[in-house]
Amino acid sequence: MLNMKPEMLDADAFHPYGQVIDKEHARSFPINSGMCTRYHDLAEIDVTGPGARPIVSIVTGEPYELPARIPMVERHPFGSQAFIPLSSRPFLVVVCDDDDGTPANLKAFLTAPGQGVNFKRNVWHGILTPLEDTSDFVVVDWAGEGTNLEEHFFDQPYTVG
Amino acid sequence: MLNMKPEMLDADAFHPYGQVIDKEHARSFPINSGMCTRYHDLAEIDVTGPGARPIVSIVTGEPYELPARIPMVERHPFGSQAFIPLSSRPFLVVVCDDDDGTPANLKAFLTAPGQGVNFKRNVWHGILTPLEDTSDFVVVDWAGEGTNLEEHFFDQPYTVG
Repeated sequence: MLNMKPEMLDADAFHPYGQVIDKEHARSFPINSGMCTRYHDLAEIDVTGPGARPIVSIVTGEPYELPARIPMVERHPFGSQAFIPLSSRPFLVVVCDDDDGTPANLKAFLTAPGQGVNFKRNVWHGILTPLEDTSDFVVVDWAGEGTNLEEHFFDQPYTVG
Repeated sequence: MLNMKPEMLDADAFHPYGQVIDKEHARSFPINSGMCTRYHDLAEIDVTGPGARPIVSIVTGEPYELPARIPMVERHPFGSQAFIPLSSRPFLVVVCDDDDGTPANLKAFLTAPGQGVNFKRNVWHGILTPLEDTSDFVVVDWAGEGTNLEEHFFDQPYTVG
């Protein structure tokens, strides 16, 4: 087992892997006669391939305990994947660089309340890992034709926390 | 003033105008070795026109009191628009049919906790109307070139509630 301590999720540190979705640092402007503030265009939705279209789903995830076992990561060759929590509870965000088709250099982040993430297309990442309690997420990702999933199981699992 | 009483939001009644986004009645299946349930493909994202792309934003809305004054509706010729609440508080959903370019037959719905909506492209609808307290919403809509807004102010405002 290789143990990692997560760092707090930060837009700059996460930038190579995607976008942090939150109101902080976002471009915002008033709409609806000032009754609303719009934090604009927070995730780069990128869907490609035959029949590709963006879809909106809700995913309910059972919680993990820390330290969480991370036996594998996955990636989606045809689409970005955004997760926006419908609760204020944190979740773990695990990403890897790609070394010629193999995930390398695992990084682990812990979200602050209200933060979501959008993984760029084909970025290695851990599966959804809610903490503390069962949690709902809005997911914006891909539908289309073809196999949009590649999994990599580590020879030696990581633990995070 | 024309007063309307809202009815509870219902997928069948709302169907001509778009989709109700919630877990109830959705197609769902387990993912991630059973740790998650995915309520799949809840909104028909429809963006069109030059440079069109779907975007994800967060909108923070100040609350309205009931009865709420509804002086106008708007529509977006280039894109659908989804609102998913990040709280369990209700909001008002106002839609109209189109009568040769003029909104007609106003209908008002009140959401149950957890319900969001996706307005079809070019459907007349009221602006975001949160109730009870300041509320955040995930918004999935359009970016691109051109004017994606048409507004109609009623000769005689409606009140809803």
